[in-house]
Amino acid sequence: VIITLTTDFGLRDAYVGSMKGVILSIHPQARIIDITHDIGPQNVVQCGFVLRQAYPCFPAGSIHVAVADPGVGTERRALMVLAGGHVFLAPDNGLLESVFEAHAGAAVFSLTNEAYFRKSVSPTFHGRDVFAPSAAHLAMGADPQDMGERIFDPVRGPVTRPLVKKHGITGRILFFDHYGNAVTDIEGGMLTGTRRTEIRVGPVEIHGVSRTYADVPLGDPAALIGSHGNLEIAFHGGSAEKQAGLAEGVSVEVLFY
Amino acid sequence: VIITLTTDFGLRDAYVGSMKGVILSIHPQARIIDITHDIGPQNVVQCGFVLRQAYPCFPAGSIHVAVADPGVGTERRALMVLAGGHVFLAPDNGLLESVFEAHAGAAVFSLTNEAYFRKSVSPTFHGRDVFAPSAAHLAMGADPQDMGERIFDPVRGPVTRPLVKKHGITGRILFFDHYGNAVTDIEGGMLTGTRRTEIRVGPVEIHGVSRTYADVPLGDPAALIGSHGNLEIAFHGGSAEKQAGLAEGVSVEVLFY
Amino acid sequence: VIITLTTDFGLRDAYVGSMKGVILSIHPQARIIDITHDIGPQNVVQCGFVLRQAYPCFPAGSIHVAVADPGVGTERRALMVLAGGHVFLAPDNGLLESVFEAHAGAAVFSLTNEAYFRKSVSPTFHGRDVFAPSAAHLAMGADPQDMGERIFDPVRGPVTRPLVKKHGITGRILFFDHYGNAVTDIEGGMLTGTRRTEIRVGPVEIHGVSRTYADVPLGDPAALIGSHGNLEIAFHGGSAEKQAGLAEGVSVEVLFY
Repeated sequence: VIITLTTDFGLRDAYVGSMKGVILSIHPQARIIDITHDIGPQNVVQCGFVLRQAYPCFPAGSIHVAVADPGVGTERRALMVLAGGHVFLAPDNGLLESVFEAHAGAAVFSLTNEAYFRKSVSPTFHGRDVFAPSAAHLAMGADPQDMGERIFDPVRGPVTRPLVKKHGITGRILFFDHYGNAVTDIEGGMLTGTRRTEIRVGPVEIHGVSRTYADVPLGDPAALIGSHGNLEIAFHGGSAEKQAGLAEGVSVEVLFY
Repeated sequence: VIITLTTDFGLRDAYVGSMKGVILSIHPQARIIDITHDIGPQNVVQCGFVLRQAYPCFPAGSIHVAVADPGVGTERRALMVLAGGHVFLAPDNGLLESVFEAHAGAAVFSLTNEAYFRKSVSPTFHGRDVFAPSAAHLAMGADPQDMGERIFDPVRGPVTRPLVKKHGITGRILFFDHYGNAVTDIEGGMLTGTRRTEIRVGPVEIHGVSRTYADVPLGDPAALIGSHGNLEIAFHGGSAEKQAGLAEGVSVEVLFY
Repeated sequence: VIITLTTDFGLRDAYVGSMKGVILSIHPQARIIDITHDIGPQNVVQCGFVLRQAYPCFPAGSIHVAVADPGVGTERRALMVLAGGHVFLAPDNGLLESVFEAHAGAAVFSLTNEAYFRKSVSPTFHGRDVFAPSAAHLAMGADPQDMGERIFDPVRGPVTRPLVKKHGITGRILFFDHYGNAVTDIEGGMLTGTRRTEIRVGPVEIHGVSRTYADVPLGDPAALIGSHGNLEIAFHGGSAEKQAGLAEGVSVEVLFY
């Protein structure tokens, strides 16, 4: 069984290694795959977005642990979600919003069975003490029904949707990827069938959606549908992140004409 | 058998990949787990601290390779240490101090049997040419007694311990973690049973030890016992690393009253 | 079978995780090893250099996927190269130059059989949609002859070689490694047998080639043969990358006398 990890723990400290040690102590044959540990600190939206990009590439039956957890140690619940043939473990803070949206029939449980936790649970490290051992026991064949009680009121959001109007769309920049490209909340499917488009974001104006970065001259801005399926703003050979006026949350206007 | 890696080699170059290739060439079934490769360059103290956090999470019998090695290529010895059911491979520079402290009966060997080294040993890359192949051969079942002679004078330290006084403790900042939290050398156990505490570090004064980051208002400093078990100084939603006056080695005063 | 990955995708986004999910969906037992994902964005020379350092450490039969791909989505071909007992998958942009140089008898194929691609191929993410699934099918035993047609005109370069003169060598800085050391294109073998050498690079003058960093006083520059086998310029306890006058492409003069 595959266990994937998506966290904001970074790779500098012992956090991720400790989670892996806990998993392997319970299930020595587990296959652990890192999706990323470089989610922005406590950035729940980014963590959910990256998870949504990656998990459909994995085989059914995979267990996905995702942790960006500003409320660790408070009363927030820990969730197990069964949806689309996958298992998701995450804090109850809206991180799994996109999973709920994609799978109306998702079964949601609150992880409360301490028999599947680590002996002593640190108030600041549920990744190691709650989520990792629960994932390992599930991979070993523990009955999901035994992990805790079913619930029907998981925390939803925070996801904003772009505003789709007759002659355009108003979205926003979700985050910047590794290359400094600005990833927006405007999905590629919202643009199909449109004849001509103009994209305005901060001081940048772009005419038309390109197929690849190389379609525009070096140094010029391009709008294209990224490999994640959303509209992104890139600079050929440069970084949108370093352009004046662009930041997370900045609005992105797409005009049809 | 699990082989963990904790190094300052970074993930930008071929160093870590080369170590893994060497291990897998000798032992194709080895399970290699990265603890971290982002130890500060040649930061022996940080490397030992991170290793100490992570290794107890792994099953007994695991082999831990740890390399932060300012003296690579000089006459410093290479060590194998058997302690607590684990095997440790590291340069003889004090990196394993916390293992020696925790396990008085540790058996220490000098890795001298070149039959377990790579054919040609680079003077600058013992991680690939000495430690990785020795670990792989051990994982394959090589007799530890055959790796080299037993020694009784490994290099100790450099570890400082906090000064515990009647009405307080004077410790220091060891390093900053991925979130910018200042990790100190003051262990949580030193604070149990104390009624009220005040923590002073640089310009920062904190009253009491919190249970979680969220216990203080956004932007405020908090003192809490981190998931590693030591006292750490954090700023809710911010970074202690970027606060004026805080740096590695800065002293931390805990007052009881 | 081992599949290694060397890319410029970074570890912040879903890119690398998606590639691994695709591989494991086709070949659940594949052993995936990261060489690095921190190649400079679209730095074809660095990607080829790091791959050349690492791949000979892996056992014969390994499959190496390397992607730094400024031309993704254009008409550039995707290559499979059989050489030295290893299999290489990479864009046809000169990345594999060092493999071609080392193995005159390399067999080169153009990956054109879409049966081995992902169902829908994104114009910006051939790593996930072309290279990863092709590697997984090869690891599962697909016939290399079936992946596409053999070709004889792969794109060569861009590799510059140092100019070897009677009384010296003129090379250049290829890139800076994790420690900030300047790695040059001057191979250690070009210096053997020379009596005395002087190295000049930017404002820096160094007398003689050291065996280890520790051979020079703290803060001083050293020239030495790095673990990759090439001449590198390092500062003991410092970073050559931050020294005035040093940058990628800067020429390096070695004088014999």
